Amino acid sequence: MAKYVIGIDYGSDSARSVVVDASNGREMASAVMNYPRWSKGLYCNPVENRYRQHPQDYIDVMIYVVREALAQCPPEVAAGVTGISFDTTGSTPVLTDREGTPLAMLPEFAENPDAMFVLWKDHTAVKEAAEINRLAKIWQTDYTQYEGGIYSSEWVWAKMLHILRSNRQVREKAYSWIEHCDWMTALLTGIVKPKEVVRSRCAAGHKAMWHESWDGLPSEEFLTALDPLLAGMRGRLYRDTRTSDCKVGTLTDEWARRLGLSTDVVVGVSAFDCHMGAVGGEITPNVLARAIGTSTCDILIADYKAVEGKLVAGICGQVDGSVIPGYMGLEAGQSAFGDIYAWFKNVIGWGISELLPERTDVLGEIIPRLSEAAAQIPVEESTIVAVDWMNGRRTPDANQEVKGAIAGLTLGSSAPRIFRALVEATAYGSRAIVERLRREGVQVEGVIGLGGVAKKSPFVMQTMADVMNMPIKVARTDQTCAFGAAMFAAVASGIYTNVEQAQRAMGQGFDRTYTPDPDRAAAYDKLYEKYVALGRFTEKEGF
Amino acid sequence: MAKYVIGIDYGSDSARSVVVDASNGREMASAVMNYPRWSKGLYCNPVENRYRQHPQDYIDVMIYVVREALAQCPPEVAAGVTGISFDTTGSTPVLTDREGTPLAMLPEFAENPDAMFVLWKDHTAVKEAAEINRLAKIWQTDYTQYEGGIYSSEWVWAKMLHILRSNRQVREKAYSWIEHCDWMTALLTGIVKPKEVVRSRCAAGHKAMWHESWDGLPSEEFLTALDPLLAGMRGRLYRDTRTSDCKVGTLTDEWARRLGLSTDVVVGVSAFDCHMGAVGGEITPNVLARAIGTSTCDILIADYKAVEGKLVAGICGQVDGSVIPGYMGLEAGQSAFGDIYAWFKNVIGWGISELLPERTDVLGEIIPRLSEAAAQIPVEESTIVAVDWMNGRRTPDANQEVKGAIAGLTLGSSAPRIFRALVEATAYGSRAIVERLRREGVQVEGVIGLGGVAKKSPFVMQTMADVMNMPIKVARTDQTCAFGAAMFAAVASGIYTNVEQAQRAMGQGFDRTYTPDPDRAAAYDKLYEKYVALGRFTEKEGF
Repeated sequence: MAKYVIGIDYGSDSARSVVVDASNGREMASAVMNYPRWSKGLYCNPVENRYRQHPQDYIDVMIYVVREALAQCPPEVAAGVTGISFDTTGSTPVLTDREGTPLAMLPEFAENPDAMFVLWKDHTAVKEAAEINRLAKIWQTDYTQYEGGIYSSEWVWAKMLHILRSNRQVREKAYSWIEHCDWMTALLTGIVKPKEVVRSRCAAGHKAMWHESWDGLPSEEFLTALDPLLAGMRGRLYRDTRTSDCKVGTLTDEWARRLGLSTDVVVGVSAFDCHMGAVGGEITPNVLARAIGTSTCDILIADYKAVEGKLVAGICGQVDGSVIPGYMGLEAGQSAFGDIYAWFKNVIGWGISELLPERTDVLGEIIPRLSEAAAQIPVEESTIVAVDWMNGRRTPDANQEVKGAIAGLTLGSSAPRIFRALVEATAYGSRAIVERLRREGVQVEGVIGLGGVAKKSPFVMQTMADVMNMPIKVARTDQTCAFGAAMFAAVASGIYTNVEQAQRAMGQGFDRTYTPDPDRAAAYDKLYEKYVALGRFTEKEGF
Repeated sequence: MAKYVIGIDYGSDSARSVVVDASNGREMASAVMNYPRWSKGLYCNPVENRYRQHPQDYIDVMIYVVREALAQCPPEVAAGVTGISFDTTGSTPVLTDREGTPLAMLPEFAENPDAMFVLWKDHTAVKEAAEINRLAKIWQTDYTQYEGGIYSSEWVWAKMLHILRSNRQVREKAYSWIEHCDWMTALLTGIVKPKEVVRSRCAAGHKAMWHESWDGLPSEEFLTALDPLLAGMRGRLYRDTRTSDCKVGTLTDEWARRLGLSTDVVVGVSAFDCHMGAVGGEITPNVLARAIGTSTCDILIADYKAVEGKLVAGICGQVDGSVIPGYMGLEAGQSAFGDIYAWFKNVIGWGISELLPERTDVLGEIIPRLSEAAAQIPVEESTIVAVDWMNGRRTPDANQEVKGAIAGLTLGSSAPRIFRALVEATAYGSRAIVERLRREGVQVEGVIGLGGVAKKSPFVMQTMADVMNMPIKVARTDQTCAFGAAMFAAVASGIYTNVEQAQRAMGQGFDRTYTPDPDRAAAYDKLYEKYVALGRFTEKEGF
């Protein structure tokens, strides 16, 4: 009897399932659903960068996307499912009660944003992140060292502390916390008590300052020094973590019924989206897998020898086994990528929105038309140089204060020429990541492109190949995260003995390779120096 | 019997006449006409920055604008006209034959662009300008020293040499050259032979390297060293020049008939537009009169003591009597001002032009709407800093190679916020001129705004007042150039004994003063430093 696995990818706005034949990776069905409360804008305040998601949203969409995908398959498929695995955004944590229940699931907190999951891009905890950084730098152990040396307001400790401080009602009920990715597996297996939950290595290592060398989470002394409100929290969390090849448990009766699956179905350990996406996109050692959308998340796996006993400076984190067990998972990224094109679209589109509000239907054509026109401009005419830090900089050397710039403007700098410079800027930002990895002794032998921009924007991808002077392969599947989760489900449920085996059996390969043009690459070598100089200047001068 | 004077202003695209009551400055009538050949785009090639104007265009529009304005007046006005004076763009020269006739007026050259006037903004002579600069710097006398030390491709010697080199047919016929402003007076008075033409001090001193101290034009040795093609040219030009309070002559029979005026009408010595515009805008010593349009032309008159024996470094020129006799006329300017707003309008408007070509009727509303929205943004939110060199830099320290830049961009940088930064950038450029003049020991006690932007853009003018931290008065008349020409006509025809007297009697005063806000001025003091730093960096790095 054929065996099937289910991967579920929880994105920022929606969740998506994919049902896959574990023997060959054939996609049997998939389904997607937007978070119903989130899509109404509930519980959020963009002006304050407050972004919260209700746990019930996660439950509602899971039931739909699993049942809907299974409904598209022949009846025998549901019976053949052996495993299910998840990836989610992160760090997206929530405070729980003693039972491990997210507070917003309790009737009295059902409408309280502080009792909900704090989405990765919520920036309400800027102050707490700064305090963590200050304390970490004077502490005997710098607990941020494996997370790039700079703790972010997007990460769990800053967020949880911020809420404990700012909401007395929530604080009095709060007992522990849990990441979105771990809550899904806890819920489905019934292993929900805070001390019993199986915790993802990926989430813990990249965002919670968990490290084997200091016996797990940061010490009680450190956390209490940060704020006495955190006293005892460490003891109500975890010592150990698991890589995503491991099994958490099997479906409870209730969840087997709700999903239409058997109680034998194995639930695998979760991870963050890009990490599983890299696996789904067939990452191999020393190849940079880049999920390219509004921003980028860049994953590289290195064997231990390459990074033994060393810290890779200026990246987002390095965690043993966060991607594939047996390798060090390195994470990097660009704070804005497609968002920069969208920003320029809005600048250009202002004329239409303001003067012809009845014709905003054409706004969606702006980026395709700009791309088309920009692609016609020869590189010799790339005299506009831009820096891509319009949303700060993630890698190298995270700095949320830096800003974007455009130089070399003339009265002939048309919209397509500026757009071309912005595309080049995002490519320079990509190259800066690779240059940093190499400077730190990490080999980068290839690039894989994943995600919306990689699939849909040949002009952007060709420019990136030219600027990076490396071929870029684009994964065939456009659901690499859910697909990667399905591969992990296959390993966790024992169909394959390790992730590499699952990749070989289930991988769908690549459908396109962008090859650098030697002339353009040579031209970009010089322009890249200008990008570096312009960025260095604006950062130093505090623009 | 009342006395009237006529001022004629030849702009880049059109000429405008104004008929004025010489006793009180009351405007009786005015008329405007576009150059007919020019408006069809004839003889030009924008891609090569080649801009040529046919002499017949100048004749056609003169007849129309004079007759049309007079037709609007009671019949006695034409009979009461005592004088007519001109201002033109410049340097806008043409090669002539032995008789002083512009070559394009000869049938065999009627369609030859190289036989026409070379409009100020024609940049075909970049190479020749560079050669002049190289030679001037090693010559015993630096003939560029009173023109800011850098000879421009927009100026007569570079342009004439370029044409002599590049067009054999024209070269063989060419005997001498004449500036547009001098040709008009030559034509009307019949004093047209090259050696007899009365030459404008303003044109000669600011653009032809004419200076009393070296006996007029640069030496024959210098010109021949530059290129043997120029051999003998100096001897076919002039030794002396006249200020614009002087009379050239009176109308010929033919021109009196063509214009509907008497042969007693005095024709005054011409000057370039801004210089007469400054007078029309009631310039007084040590007040900077700024004609603000697509670019700016800034004029200041200083008494001799202030500039005695010294060169004001980095400005466009200093010429004794080029504005008002008895004062040193200093010229400066910004290469782009309103052109920067128009550029941004085109960038924004690209969406409409490309996607909704049937609705380009709304493009004209972009700048007003942007201004309205930008004016609402408090200065504390001026975190975008731009440099206004999108068309190179005229003052301080002319450099056509420098380019514009925008720094401090975020994903929240909306079109109005960028526009505000561009308006601030043009104001920083204005301040840079004043700072340079002061550094060079020239007092600047006030600012007068003239021209389209000054009259029509309160947001721009208020920002300029805040950035410069000086009140800016805006002249009441919006035809200051033609009006200034009328004042000169009144002096040349003997109604007043000097320019100041004409200004007092005919001046229409100011209709608005923009007063700096102290808080905004303090904020801009700091932002100006960032502008300076960003400009210095981009110039040094060759962006």
